[in-house]
Amino acid sequence: MGETLKLFGWKVSPYSHRVEVALRLKGVKYEFIHEDLANKSDMLIRYNPILKKIPVLLHDDTPIVESQVIVEYIDEVFDGHPILPKDPYERAEARFWARFIDEKVRPQVWMSCWTDGEIQKSFIAQAKESLATLQGRLEGKKFFGGDSIGLIDIMACSLALWYGVMEEVVGLNLLNDYPELCRWGEDYRNVEAVRECLPERELIVDFFAPRKDRIFAKKAPVYD
Amino acid sequence: MGETLKLFGWKVSPYSHRVEVALRLKGVKYEFIHEDLANKSDMLIRYNPILKKIPVLLHDDTPIVESQVIVEYIDEVFDGHPILPKDPYERAEARFWARFIDEKVRPQVWMSCWTDGEIQKSFIAQAKESLATLQGRLEGKKFFGGDSIGLIDIMACSLALWYGVMEEVVGLNLLNDYPELCRWGEDYRNVEAVRECLPERELIVDFFAPRKDRIFAKKAPVYD
Repeated sequence: MGETLKLFGWKVSPYSHRVEVALRLKGVKYEFIHEDLANKSDMLIRYNPILKKIPVLLHDDTPIVESQVIVEYIDEVFDGHPILPKDPYERAEARFWARFIDEKVRPQVWMSCWTDGEIQKSFIAQAKESLATLQGRLEGKKFFGGDSIGLIDIMACSLALWYGVMEEVVGLNLLNDYPELCRWGEDYRNVEAVRECLPERELIVDFFAPRKDRIFAKKAPVYD
Repeated sequence: MGETLKLFGWKVSPYSHRVEVALRLKGVKYEFIHEDLANKSDMLIRYNPILKKIPVLLHDDTPIVESQVIVEYIDEVFDGHPILPKDPYERAEARFWARFIDEKVRPQVWMSCWTDGEIQKSFIAQAKESLATLQGRLEGKKFFGGDSIGLIDIMACSLALWYGVMEEVVGLNLLNDYPELCRWGEDYRNVEAVRECLPERELIVDFFAPRKDRIFAKKAPVYD
């Protein structure tokens, strides 16, 4: 076909990971272009002039931006492993949970790790409620997508690796109270398409450890 | 068919409006169930137990939740006016801008109105940048969707009415600097499916005016 796929990403980022997993589930070949986030390439800025962020998927000459948007695009364009369900109601449900993960779980867990005192208490309470709700969605299934992974699993990837490392670095212990989420995380990490592109744990530690020193030394939590 | 559609909403809410416009564009009949947000119905809580918010679309016995998720569901289930484009790349692009509106424009304009001092200055600067970017997306087209309205227009509905009222109430003037967005807003309000379900301006004034007294009297901006 002469079709080319290039992914501008960063191996340590769960947002890059989301796109890589989707591409691998579809069994399509792609070139991974590693971006130095401290010194972004002209190509990245050119292909994502509005957000200037990874990941960007370049499909032939067409750039697609924002991890969930890219994952849905990949599902629409390539055959193979279905990422979203076919049934419109189930698709809506998957999109609802994808949003729940990005708008509730993500900021709540993040802020639980990077604040302290009363603010932290409030975020921990919110995060616990959301994690319990998300765990409830598994309903005895192996994956959020059922027998195999789908949109919700891919969107929840941070829970399978990144948040555990982040907790360890800052000395918090939230996730262990959700055994079904932990079991899901292990199963997710063992999926072939995931295992092949999961960053090494040490790389994530190396990202969070200096951040911890920087933020808590200043006693000024960074809200990003 | 015996099919029933019920929309649990609130006439003053732009999120209800998004769903109503999508249903009207498709030409399907629905029952609007007005929720008292200060005293939510048992039905609303039952159909949206996680967020406990409007809008909820009940399609026969199936509840669908979150305005953008509902709009995409309506587009997938009903024939008629296309809300998302057919081409996968154009669909991805529409979803990118939908996200841009909800994650950038919305909080930036909102916070520009409900904060003051240095914080307000910072939000105004961000809002201006995003509004200019969004206006650029019109590129001489009548609507974001082209000749007729689509997902981006529906997602941007607050810019066509609600934000203008909010600015007036708090005494800010941001939107007037974007003549193409203002022109778009007028054209959007004149679309038949929109006009039929747009709330009266006074109802929106009645919502924002007491909020202004409450927030600025306390000198404590409410971040919601």
